[in-house]
Amino acid sequence: MEMDKLVSLCKRRGFLFQSSEIYGGLNGFWDYGPLGVELKRNVKEAWWRDMVTGHDDSSVPTGAPEAYEMTGLDCTIIMHPQVWKVSGHYDLFCDMMQTCRQCKKLFRSDHAWSALRNADWVLSFAEVFSASVDDEKIVFSSPDALRWAKDRKRGRRLAPGLAVVRNPEVTLSWLAEDLAANPDMELSLTTLLKYMATEQKNKTGLQMPCPECGGDLTEPREFNLMFKTTVGALADPEKDFAFLRPETAQGIFVNFKNVVDSTRVRIPFGIAQVGKSFRNEITPRNFTFRSREFEQMEIEFFCHPNSSQDWYRYWRDRRMKWYQEMGLGGERLQLREHHQDELSHYSTGTADIEYAFPFLAAGEYGELEGIAHRGDFDLRSHMEGKLDEKSCPLQVQLGADGKPKWRGSGKDLTYRDDISNERFTPHVIEPSAGADRATLAFLCEAYTEDEAPDENGKMQTRVVMKFHPRIAPIKAAVFPLVKKDGMPEVAKEIYRALKPHFNVFYDEKGAVGRRYRRQDEAGTPYCITVDGQTMQDNTVTIRDRDSLEQWRVKVEDCVAEIRRRIG
Amino acid sequence: MEMDKLVSLCKRRGFLFQSSEIYGGLNGFWDYGPLGVELKRNVKEAWWRDMVTGHDDSSVPTGAPEAYEMTGLDCTIIMHPQVWKVSGHYDLFCDMMQTCRQCKKLFRSDHAWSALRNADWVLSFAEVFSASVDDEKIVFSSPDALRWAKDRKRGRRLAPGLAVVRNPEVTLSWLAEDLAANPDMELSLTTLLKYMATEQKNKTGLQMPCPECGGDLTEPREFNLMFKTTVGALADPEKDFAFLRPETAQGIFVNFKNVVDSTRVRIPFGIAQVGKSFRNEITPRNFTFRSREFEQMEIEFFCHPNSSQDWYRYWRDRRMKWYQEMGLGGERLQLREHHQDELSHYSTGTADIEYAFPFLAAGEYGELEGIAHRGDFDLRSHMEGKLDEKSCPLQVQLGADGKPKWRGSGKDLTYRDDISNERFTPHVIEPSAGADRATLAFLCEAYTEDEAPDENGKMQTRVVMKFHPRIAPIKAAVFPLVKKDGMPEVAKEIYRALKPHFNVFYDEKGAVGRRYRRQDEAGTPYCITVDGQTMQDNTVTIRDRDSLEQWRVKVEDCVAEIRRRIG
Repeated sequence: MEMDKLVSLCKRRGFLFQSSEIYGGLNGFWDYGPLGVELKRNVKEAWWRDMVTGHDDSSVPTGAPEAYEMTGLDCTIIMHPQVWKVSGHYDLFCDMMQTCRQCKKLFRSDHAWSALRNADWVLSFAEVFSASVDDEKIVFSSPDALRWAKDRKRGRRLAPGLAVVRNPEVTLSWLAEDLAANPDMELSLTTLLKYMATEQKNKTGLQMPCPECGGDLTEPREFNLMFKTTVGALADPEKDFAFLRPETAQGIFVNFKNVVDSTRVRIPFGIAQVGKSFRNEITPRNFTFRSREFEQMEIEFFCHPNSSQDWYRYWRDRRMKWYQEMGLGGERLQLREHHQDELSHYSTGTADIEYAFPFLAAGEYGELEGIAHRGDFDLRSHMEGKLDEKSCPLQVQLGADGKPKWRGSGKDLTYRDDISNERFTPHVIEPSAGADRATLAFLCEAYTEDEAPDENGKMQTRVVMKFHPRIAPIKAAVFPLVKKDGMPEVAKEIYRALKPHFNVFYDEKGAVGRRYRRQDEAGTPYCITVDGQTMQDNTVTIRDRDSLEQWRVKVEDCVAEIRRRIG
Repeated sequence: MEMDKLVSLCKRRGFLFQSSEIYGGLNGFWDYGPLGVELKRNVKEAWWRDMVTGHDDSSVPTGAPEAYEMTGLDCTIIMHPQVWKVSGHYDLFCDMMQTCRQCKKLFRSDHAWSALRNADWVLSFAEVFSASVDDEKIVFSSPDALRWAKDRKRGRRLAPGLAVVRNPEVTLSWLAEDLAANPDMELSLTTLLKYMATEQKNKTGLQMPCPECGGDLTEPREFNLMFKTTVGALADPEKDFAFLRPETAQGIFVNFKNVVDSTRVRIPFGIAQVGKSFRNEITPRNFTFRSREFEQMEIEFFCHPNSSQDWYRYWRDRRMKWYQEMGLGGERLQLREHHQDELSHYSTGTADIEYAFPFLAAGEYGELEGIAHRGDFDLRSHMEGKLDEKSCPLQVQLGADGKPKWRGSGKDLTYRDDISNERFTPHVIEPSAGADRATLAFLCEAYTEDEAPDENGKMQTRVVMKFHPRIAPIKAAVFPLVKKDGMPEVAKEIYRALKPHFNVFYDEKGAVGRRYRRQDEAGTPYCITVDGQTMQDNTVTIRDRDSLEQWRVKVEDCVAEIRRRIG
């Protein structure tokens, strides 16, 4: 399936619109249209039912070490800024960024060199010296460089921002001077490129060139991925700042004690939350996959340290099974255990549930959900303060005053088992899913083109969204074959009988074949048609979206039939 | 009911927690706990079902001019900043604020004078001159003022920040000078108070005194109620700013064309949205009533101008009925039509649905929902630009260049009726409800104290949350009378039978009387108890939360019994 077909269908049929589209749109923000909102609601509702309200805490689920309880929570998007200092997001949730002073493009510092290695102008320049980009020692020739810089097809076209192109004589003079002073100086391509990018070496030192145009990049500066705002009317932006949460998880940790104190939950138990999170992504892309505003479905599962590995395996497998149950059964779905060197220092196990989205290269997968064993890192951080990321788990990082750099709440977030009387800091397993990513995967998986007969019986290409019935926005559509002979009245009666139980749609406009096709594109599993025979024997046809099979049932059996098939 | 009892129950039983409580909390932000999250979900779900997915568009509802369609939408919280310029929020959604330089308190400029009129220090000062606060002409006496200022029980206690108290001689000299220069000068109390608040008249001019301490207030400065943030990595806070939406409504207006183009909806139809909005309230207060982060349930209903008044009345009455259906039946709920002079210039009718919250003074009501006839103001604004608020509707305000001050999208947001072929800009009826306010009203209405027998048959005060069964977080609890004799096994079977249909709770801990009381506080309508008789005749007792009536049903009839009673 080509991605552009899905994107176009999503807009045309009202699954997804670009946010603020009439004002030119806003990069990284997406609105759910009439069909999309129902699809996403169904995804979130299925998750909440399967994980929280429908969870049977009186039985031991397959693969679980024992029975467990689940409860929900709904925290605010704006939280106390100390939460993000202690969680580590304030210090670590940022990228170093550089801007090109010539073309104004923005680069992540850790990506700039790899982008440079593949830049056309760098390859062209390296060719002049018969060098490869990895060569450590280059024999430089000033006239050759000058020729390259002035060439309309090479320097001037490929690297218009490069200092040696803009002002060749001055630029080359710095290198000439340094080579004269130090004839044994060895030039690598990296160093040479920096000389070529530097017009005022005495003022600026050697510059890093822009992979795009060769221009000089600004110094790296920190860019925090959290959206910042100010709270309160006195709003001193330097003091009263707050952040939009970059994850829902921390809301659960800081409420751990509230939940234990206000309910009868005993460990092991999980707290679930669905809600919006925000990350100021530098390059939002791939439709809704990497958005700046997105919705998460997170569980923090609290257990005894001794059984935490068993619970990690349980949740990893349980969550994988959930996607399979919801229709992502095929090879496009995979569970990937992180290698030892991918793990956070506090994690003894992390797995990603991934989907081969059609916008990715062949063999590449995108993350739908991460399941992480987080040890007692989060609860201890909120008790004691921000912990040192680099060293071993749980060693508190000390500031100059000998105290932890960021102070925790000082509150006791340990747990006492009322039977064994043991007190301990629970370990946490975190299955963290993206509601928009799951919805996007279901959209991709559902998109199908096949052949079906049109109203004249001629085979035509058909676009059909094969959603699992649980998440289909509309469960059934009801049509009168024609808009006369009492058919609309009977069809409306059936519609009204179904309405209290399912989201159903009534349509009497246009040829019935086109109405079927519209429902196929909306992913409606069943279409019920009232026709001439209905008026005689009180039966209607039901058409299956996927198999195109049609069969007749009595009018009064429609609710039961749809309920049985939807499940 | 005293409010503090409800607030305490909400925390103790896990309905509501202060956000970031372990870090001292965040003013104006509230988290929903395990019971609260289910309550609020049920409120939002009931609204969505009753307004959107359950709406029967094939019939004419009671009171409606004709049948209509409903559809949903889910837009982002961060939208293009132009949306808020054109909607008027950028220019008008702000208060003028002044801070006291002495006590640092913050005042809305338009409230400062009325606060001053009632301030103890002002009343005490006026008494010196036998003046009332409304007197236009005061006979001033410098020695009397000096005495008042130096008095430990008057000036020094009541107005420690007032210039004449802090530095009486200098302060009084300015007035003496002016009176000498202009012996006929008439002094009103307002003017006199300003002189008393001014120590350096030559430098600062006359100062406005602080109602709290008499200190001098800063110049009024504009404070926008929208939370501001910056989007993108180049983040120039002056250029790349964006706002957290202060209402969900605008997301619907800017998507009007997308919805019409991607669905088969015809006017009249409504678009519904549930989602978070943010307002940087200066003084958040009254529990969750005035929060800085809150959730809205909004409908924008699009209709022909000729029938818009009928639709306004329909929605006003329909929405009032909804709260009544959900249990707010009594005198604490009222529908209040706005007076002509309360209306926005574009509105020909607005009504508030209000509730007499217990934290308000007797006779006062707080807004749950506003239903407004907005004419074609919003769609025309997004077509043509920001309209002049002051003058007649729909007259475009022109900037210095003769063009509208804020440009609209330039997109055609009119509607063409495909039968009559008429093209027009639809009129809008907006029923805008607060999900948190509705939830709070349901909590207040539900809170009841009555008398009920404890486990020894002795009458005791009982706290019971009498939620409508549709919104009750837990629909039924299942108890074994004692934790032996096979009772837990039967109770768990009943629990498992109910679980797929309702949110049910199993509890075997402690005396059954205490378990009943816990469910009363959670608002669970029915408790099912397995007792000795169950083991003989396979019946259980069901207890009604409100009437305390108990009756027996067969184990296998529990699901049907609860379903019948919940409705």
